[in-house]
Amino acid sequence: MDQSDAAPLYLKLADKIESLIRAATFPAGGRIPSVRHMSRQQGVSIPTVLQAYLILQDRHLIEARPKSGFFVRTRIAEAFPVDLYQKRRLQSKSLSKFPPLMSLVHDVVDPRFIPLGGAHPSAQLLPARKLSSLMAAIARLHPHATVTCDPAPGCARLRAELSRRSLDWGCQLTPVDFLITNGATEALFLALCATTRQGDTVMVESPTHYGILNALSQLRLKAVAIPSSAPDSMDQDAAAKVIAREKVAAIVLVPNFNNPLGRIMSEACRLKLVAMASKKDIPIIEDDVYGDLYFAGQRPPCLKSLDTNGSILLCSSFSKTLAPGYRVGYLAAGRYQDQIIPLKTALNYAGNPLPARTVAEFLRTGGYEHHLATLRRTFRDQVQHLRQALIAVLPQEVRITQPQGGFVLWLQLPAAVDAMALFHEARRHNLSIAPGHLFSPSAEYKNYLRLSCTHPWNDRTAEGIQLLGRLVAGKITPNPGQVTPDPG
Amino acid sequence: MDQSDAAPLYLKLADKIESLIRAATFPAGGRIPSVRHMSRQQGVSIPTVLQAYLILQDRHLIEARPKSGFFVRTRIAEAFPVDLYQKRRLQSKSLSKFPPLMSLVHDVVDPRFIPLGGAHPSAQLLPARKLSSLMAAIARLHPHATVTCDPAPGCARLRAELSRRSLDWGCQLTPVDFLITNGATEALFLALCATTRQGDTVMVESPTHYGILNALSQLRLKAVAIPSSAPDSMDQDAAAKVIAREKVAAIVLVPNFNNPLGRIMSEACRLKLVAMASKKDIPIIEDDVYGDLYFAGQRPPCLKSLDTNGSILLCSSFSKTLAPGYRVGYLAAGRYQDQIIPLKTALNYAGNPLPARTVAEFLRTGGYEHHLATLRRTFRDQVQHLRQALIAVLPQEVRITQPQGGFVLWLQLPAAVDAMALFHEARRHNLSIAPGHLFSPSAEYKNYLRLSCTHPWNDRTAEGIQLLGRLVAGKITPNPGQVTPDPG
Repeated sequence: MDQSDAAPLYLKLADKIESLIRAATFPAGGRIPSVRHMSRQQGVSIPTVLQAYLILQDRHLIEARPKSGFFVRTRIAEAFPVDLYQKRRLQSKSLSKFPPLMSLVHDVVDPRFIPLGGAHPSAQLLPARKLSSLMAAIARLHPHATVTCDPAPGCARLRAELSRRSLDWGCQLTPVDFLITNGATEALFLALCATTRQGDTVMVESPTHYGILNALSQLRLKAVAIPSSAPDSMDQDAAAKVIAREKVAAIVLVPNFNNPLGRIMSEACRLKLVAMASKKDIPIIEDDVYGDLYFAGQRPPCLKSLDTNGSILLCSSFSKTLAPGYRVGYLAAGRYQDQIIPLKTALNYAGNPLPARTVAEFLRTGGYEHHLATLRRTFRDQVQHLRQALIAVLPQEVRITQPQGGFVLWLQLPAAVDAMALFHEARRHNLSIAPGHLFSPSAEYKNYLRLSCTHPWNDRTAEGIQLLGRLVAGKITPNPGQVTPDPG
Repeated sequence: MDQSDAAPLYLKLADKIESLIRAATFPAGGRIPSVRHMSRQQGVSIPTVLQAYLILQDRHLIEARPKSGFFVRTRIAEAFPVDLYQKRRLQSKSLSKFPPLMSLVHDVVDPRFIPLGGAHPSAQLLPARKLSSLMAAIARLHPHATVTCDPAPGCARLRAELSRRSLDWGCQLTPVDFLITNGATEALFLALCATTRQGDTVMVESPTHYGILNALSQLRLKAVAIPSSAPDSMDQDAAAKVIAREKVAAIVLVPNFNNPLGRIMSEACRLKLVAMASKKDIPIIEDDVYGDLYFAGQRPPCLKSLDTNGSILLCSSFSKTLAPGYRVGYLAAGRYQDQIIPLKTALNYAGNPLPARTVAEFLRTGGYEHHLATLRRTFRDQVQHLRQALIAVLPQEVRITQPQGGFVLWLQLPAAVDAMALFHEARRHNLSIAPGHLFSPSAEYKNYLRLSCTHPWNDRTAEGIQLLGRLVAGKITPNPGQVTPDPG
């Protein structure tokens, strides 16, 4: 996937400048060095720099201003301005009317749809053959073990591998600390069951993943949503205010590349939130499904690494990196672990030994790190590709996140656009997208979209983006046919 | 397993008389025909009849009374007398203190234990190789499909097979009526979530399976337990009284070979209960995991076959007949189905396609009926074998059920025996048994045991039964060493 070595000089330079823009070395709205200056600084010819700047213009990253030079376009600001959110009142809301929007879940596995809606990686990006072959070998070798059920806490081999991997997360968890679950969703469900009672209030980020909100809704819990787009993610003052004012039973956070913002929570924010929760004895449920999918640097630590009294419940899975269909997830629930084991037993009695053992074997035999390295590059490239394609077809005022990991983009469309209407219209054209109101307990973000870059780019994706551009244009102008979207 | 054709005449006669005793053609306590009469009636010699009667005496089925002839021993009465239960007050109980007794779940898969405790069939009795080979083939042939998750309602192939099979249950369910779950336990959990709220009262049978009680406990529901050992199972008058008196949110029944009694609910009782529930609009949750394991006659119908308004939620699985480890179960939730699909999605997002598809393929290619026929004979023979072995070592006053299907026995020990103490003592000797109090929401049945005949009989089982005999003898006499258990 990474073809940088074979790329011509001007392309390498363009990529380098792009990464500096993303790292805010060249901040949004700021001027970038002149062509002459850049040529000297980088030791390349002036035509090479010019070529690179043209590419960056094509990528909608910079713009030329007459007699002033080249400037970083403001649309690629790292995230949304925080004031977008702080206006809202912080109230706990019942989720009794939360729409599960099952079509989103189904469309992602329906080949008729261009799958930009649901957030499950395409099988084409996963080591499907290797996993299947491992699984087949284990099944043939241990037929008796694979038809016998695996009581909680589940597959000891996998728990041993998780214990080893936990060092990378900044934790030192032992095999006993883990419970194997049917995906991170089940881990989250169990964690919520253990820490809350019907009618309790749970603090979540806003925006946050609709899977979390659906779980709260089904468990008849209320949600209070804290703005989580501040420069260092969750708004700590707002969180403090809510915690002081009302009884919060649990806090659900996605500190690493949260869905839909794709951002990482700052260390300062982590420390503050953990201290705040600890003081009031509020358990924190951490969803880390995207932790392995960083675009740069190192694997970020889990919030769980800051746990001092067993009140952080870590939920994760291999559904975003290996095999969504295997339903292999895990929960490290700290002081709740003992009470969760009979709960898991009441929920579905025991686990399926074969997928867990297959994942354990895949982790053990060393293919995982190599696979992850490729997958991270792929997702990073796909996210950038989709982002550029969107910029090319959408109106100038659209804002698009610049994720630090994961594989989703979050778009703010013009206020006139009803994303739910757009969702239905797109669906009629076999394009699956996720409307923004699903990411809020109170149906905000009505003019937002989440798009997933989970499938390899192809002609159909390109068509889908063109279609999306036309549909959005149609929503903001009386006669879309005569308008060229994004004239900038 | 069935060797009757090769058996000598006297053995065939003994088996035939045994079946007549079990069918109560020769009722408990009644006299059986004289040797001379039987010889004439059956057209066999007098020595053959004598030999058969001796065998029946060895089997503790009949006893000779001097100068009176042969009588059916009262201990094999078909079930417990109903008055044992009617004394109790019918009150709804909180299950907050219900003990999950996780060791029972673990010991059944721990090879150190003689597994008479948990109720999961041994892999040796299951088509483990055939299933593994099918699974391996599907995994290799469809690697992409098997790593992709399978959103609710789950595997269409399996739902089509279930629709076909439902005719045998007296139902005409369509593929759309089914949701694939992780075992019947998850189906039950979902059914309870959909029909109840925390604090609600659920009506159950008494005794009933501890898995059901653990689910109620974890969901913070109360239970009201209705005696279910009456000749035609659940005591309808008691049920009517409770329904008239208090608000019952749901009724959980195991009409076919309930666990631990192994009895079938009469048609009259079914009709009455369904009418009663329907009148008050109370949903009935039916657990049918033992339905395919009848010892004689035909497959009994599901209660679901009496459903007229979609308020019977049928839960079942292939865990008792094919592969506990595959966790393939299903739920046909009638009018609750639509609300359960988002609930299942919140619970664990989606299903694992491979085990479901493997089971579907096994059902489709016709091996299942043949396998079931063998399995039913095996369980029937094992249950009888265990029963005879118990009669040989336990004191005369012990009562043992005569199951009509399934694979468990329910024993009433002398009142002095504390089954929980017995459980711990047996466990120290690596014998796993299930103490009776787990089968009641109010910890009754303190001198009862449930024993599972899920593993092929072997020397270790025989040792286990001898050990149990010694332990029970030790509980009822000051010096067990000098007592021969069951001198009769």
